[in-house]
Amino acid sequence: MTDVFINYLRGNSTITDKDVELICDRAISRQLRKNEFLLEEGIVCRHKTFIAAGLLRTYSLTADGNEHILQFAPENTWTLDAESYNKAIPSKYNINAVEHSLVLMWAKPDFDQLLLTIPALKQFSDHIISENVQTTRNRLNTILSASPEERYEDFLKNTPHLLQRLPLKMVAAYLGISLKTLNRVRQAQLQRI
Amino acid sequence: MTDVFINYLRGNSTITDKDVELICDRAISRQLRKNEFLLEEGIVCRHKTFIAAGLLRTYSLTADGNEHILQFAPENTWTLDAESYNKAIPSKYNINAVEHSLVLMWAKPDFDQLLLTIPALKQFSDHIISENVQTTRNRLNTILSASPEERYEDFLKNTPHLLQRLPLKMVAAYLGISLKTLNRVRQAQLQRI
Repeated sequence: MTDVFINYLRGNSTITDKDVELICDRAISRQLRKNEFLLEEGIVCRHKTFIAAGLLRTYSLTADGNEHILQFAPENTWTLDAESYNKAIPSKYNINAVEHSLVLMWAKPDFDQLLLTIPALKQFSDHIISENVQTTRNRLNTILSASPEERYEDFLKNTPHLLQRLPLKMVAAYLGISLKTLNRVRQAQLQRI
Repeated sequence: MTDVFINYLRGNSTITDKDVELICDRAISRQLRKNEFLLEEGIVCRHKTFIAAGLLRTYSLTADGNEHILQFAPENTWTLDAESYNKAIPSKYNINAVEHSLVLMWAKPDFDQLLLTIPALKQFSDHIISENVQTTRNRLNTILSASPEERYEDFLKNTPHLLQRLPLKMVAAYLGISLKTLNRVRQAQLQRI
């Protein structure tokens, strides 16, 4: 599992092999069964998590029991609830494994220490956060402005590899449309091909 | 105008007076008339902007001419299109003055230099970015999951001072609902009082 992470850092950052080792030394490995929670609403998010294999989703639940998905985190990405993590307040969100997953986790005090001692990790972390701001902002814009058809096409364009790994009800909960609408959009799309 | 910014930094950061002076030395002052653009879609965002007075909005336009508002930036906040700024690519968004506004702007090379030489500014900037991630993520969750009534109540709770400064059509474009729906929600709310 650490190998995946080492390759990820080598391919995406300028962190030296010696510092990669320091980072790995502080990591906690964990396996998540399908449907197991990494974080539950009401609990403080105390770790940054890297997904080495599998797929997680971050979602909120409304009073009517409906799920609203903010983010999918497949292998080679990170997940956490930044607000809960930074402020040590109970999370409003759930993070749950869509598939059997292998993750590496860093406790906040450990990760903070690594950020202080490894400038290249700080730089890389800033880059990831900045990408995250942009993705979330563009996603907000899509949800505000795009039709169900456009949202679905956007999803296929940006994350074509995810569709076959997800139940359609999760795709609908991510796009902010009903399963019925999603089925209609997909049906119309198939008829055009 | 610089006084507002100096007070803002003194009240919110640990930046020394000497460094505040360095930051102010690099700032460009600008006045924006009501409806004047700070950034137009298709143009690269080359500045970080602090609003000393007034109110700006960031929005996108769909093909049907409808406006979708991502963010309002009143006095003592910042605005930019981070994706365009970081990657030097044309912006997908417009930033426009809702009111006559006074802003301070830093060109990217100048601000990058300040971030390198003033660690307390870097720390403060990281904090602002992190708050921004959280706000955008929570806003995405609201738009995905909340009813028009809940969205409006959320807006009143989080930004009560903005309502009277905005035309209702802009409030609707921010909440992702039609003006008709907003009027219905407001009417129902008035009848409950």
